[in-house]
Amino acid sequence: MESQDTGRTEISELGEFGLIDHLTQTFRISNRSSVYGVGDDAGVIDHDGFCTLISTDLLLEGVHFDLMYCPLKHLGYKSIVVNLSDIYAMNGTPTQVTVSIGISNRFSVEALEDLYAGMQAACEAHGVDLIGGDTTTSLKGFVISVTAIGTAKKDKIVYRRGAKVGDKIAVSGDLGAAFMGLQLLEREKSIFLENNQIQPDLEGQEYVVGRQLKPEARKDIVEILERLQIVPTAMIDVSDGLSSEIMHICKQSGVGCLLKEAEIPIDQETYHLALKFNLDPITCAMNGGEDYELLFTLTEEDAANITEEVGIKIIGEIVPASQGCTLESKAGKIHHLKAQGWNPL
Amino acid sequence: MESQDTGRTEISELGEFGLIDHLTQTFRISNRSSVYGVGDDAGVIDHDGFCTLISTDLLLEGVHFDLMYCPLKHLGYKSIVVNLSDIYAMNGTPTQVTVSIGISNRFSVEALEDLYAGMQAACEAHGVDLIGGDTTTSLKGFVISVTAIGTAKKDKIVYRRGAKVGDKIAVSGDLGAAFMGLQLLEREKSIFLENNQIQPDLEGQEYVVGRQLKPEARKDIVEILERLQIVPTAMIDVSDGLSSEIMHICKQSGVGCLLKEAEIPIDQETYHLALKFNLDPITCAMNGGEDYELLFTLTEEDAANITEEVGIKIIGEIVPASQGCTLESKAGKIHHLKAQGWNPL
Repeated sequence: MESQDTGRTEISELGEFGLIDHLTQTFRISNRSSVYGVGDDAGVIDHDGFCTLISTDLLLEGVHFDLMYCPLKHLGYKSIVVNLSDIYAMNGTPTQVTVSIGISNRFSVEALEDLYAGMQAACEAHGVDLIGGDTTTSLKGFVISVTAIGTAKKDKIVYRRGAKVGDKIAVSGDLGAAFMGLQLLEREKSIFLENNQIQPDLEGQEYVVGRQLKPEARKDIVEILERLQIVPTAMIDVSDGLSSEIMHICKQSGVGCLLKEAEIPIDQETYHLALKFNLDPITCAMNGGEDYELLFTLTEEDAANITEEVGIKIIGEIVPASQGCTLESKAGKIHHLKAQGWNPL
Repeated sequence: MESQDTGRTEISELGEFGLIDHLTQTFRISNRSSVYGVGDDAGVIDHDGFCTLISTDLLLEGVHFDLMYCPLKHLGYKSIVVNLSDIYAMNGTPTQVTVSIGISNRFSVEALEDLYAGMQAACEAHGVDLIGGDTTTSLKGFVISVTAIGTAKKDKIVYRRGAKVGDKIAVSGDLGAAFMGLQLLEREKSIFLENNQIQPDLEGQEYVVGRQLKPEARKDIVEILERLQIVPTAMIDVSDGLSSEIMHICKQSGVGCLLKEAEIPIDQETYHLALKFNLDPITCAMNGGEDYELLFTLTEEDAANITEEVGIKIIGEIVPASQGCTLESKAGKIHHLKAQGWNPL
């Protein structure tokens, strides 16, 4: 692990996922109730068949949000739903959240009221209760940490590790819009910073901007699956981009995948805006992230019962690990997928 | 709530505890399992008599720790135990934690290994499992967010709100040492910053420095109470200082208190160091904070079964609310207590 001479290993040498694996590899599980440790969307605690799910996210100003274009009410909403999304990704039902914030005196009580109004709207939309948290001073930037708690029957929990060769790969909604929303907001921000007489022009781009500023967690998809009596074989939510997420499923399931470019759902607004920005729409969909859609694998039999009307699309299938993780382009060319993740700046 | 003219209310007008109350007052509880919301050491989720406890803390560089004198291994240990302390303060048993960190590239993998080694030592000492978390880039300062999960039987959970007139007030260990440790470390830091040839002189001060850098959560006290078959009427952990904490119990229980200065436990090292720093030892004990001792109230009958040998001291009693929250000095003078808390800088 050590670099030559200095004895210092840069975090970038391991990457985000390698770092977590490395740091937590010596931790052992000592409680019978701890079913699953680090490495899925949520931790699982078993109370004799009935389970508690726990997921946590840290949102930092300048990294995860920019207060220049992110209204506090939207930020409050988003900070809750991105956590609930992790509970849904385990096929669970979120029930409670805790919220911790680190704030400086540049915030007024009214600003925080907006933040909490957004949080409350998200809690109400998803039927979850705020049951605690921590409030502290931050010297440098605004910090939000949310932990979501949910429940699931043990035999209904869906991990990342259950995909089997021959399973179909499905995704809800469409991809890449949140990323294009971010590109647009960043462009309008630079224009405004150069000349503050120019007001942002977001007309006709409400969908992508909304997907970035106020994403939704797919409670409805979990409910649809339950109604159809389908339990996916593996599931994850799309926070880092389709490419990274399907690779998590494949790595943990010991399989490969073949995605079909022609089947990847991309909204028209996303598509046209990508072209306008000289970006490849499929790259935005594969690597963009922050879609908070659900990506899951299904037996062939269950996949046959899924129709596009419910907002779920079959985009590929699970193949043997030896075939790797690939995307077949519309022209029939095979591309190998790359994981994204992050490295510290 | 609004200031004149500007429509801007400063957070300092409400203070920490007023702010939390204000922001969360419109949140409603919609799940039957959510027993207790914001306002105690931990949230409580009821699964038919068997409960899950949840507590979360946010630690920010420059506010809660200074990496100049806080070794990362100690910081890892402390970040876990301060959360476990909240679970013990509900008379619960911690079982799991999640850990989120925000880091910049100035940290090496080896530095993070130290941090996680400290976390692992704390997890092992308290029999808790790391079951998840989040790792992200931070542009400005190091951020740690820990959520602790525990269990308790519903009828054994101790809230802040149960103190009754006539109950005795008890505290574990001794108070003010962590605060004096901080004063000492801050002094040595300023000396070092002026002249980096001068090495810190902490000889004979190991106790107070240890209390600051590597506090312990009082698992043993919860076990002693169980062995003695004592369920306190109210309990809280001492993180902000004895004065603030007893006032939380009094406010939520609708009572007052009378503390006896002569009974407040202060270690000799703390006492002498306070005098050396021209500080009043009792003020350090009352307002210092970060002791992570347990402060609780007991029926008179239970209090009679507590002896100082087990490391618990009776320091006063609960009185009617009309008598306020007071401290009787050694000279017999009555002082009214003041809450601490914080205001954003």
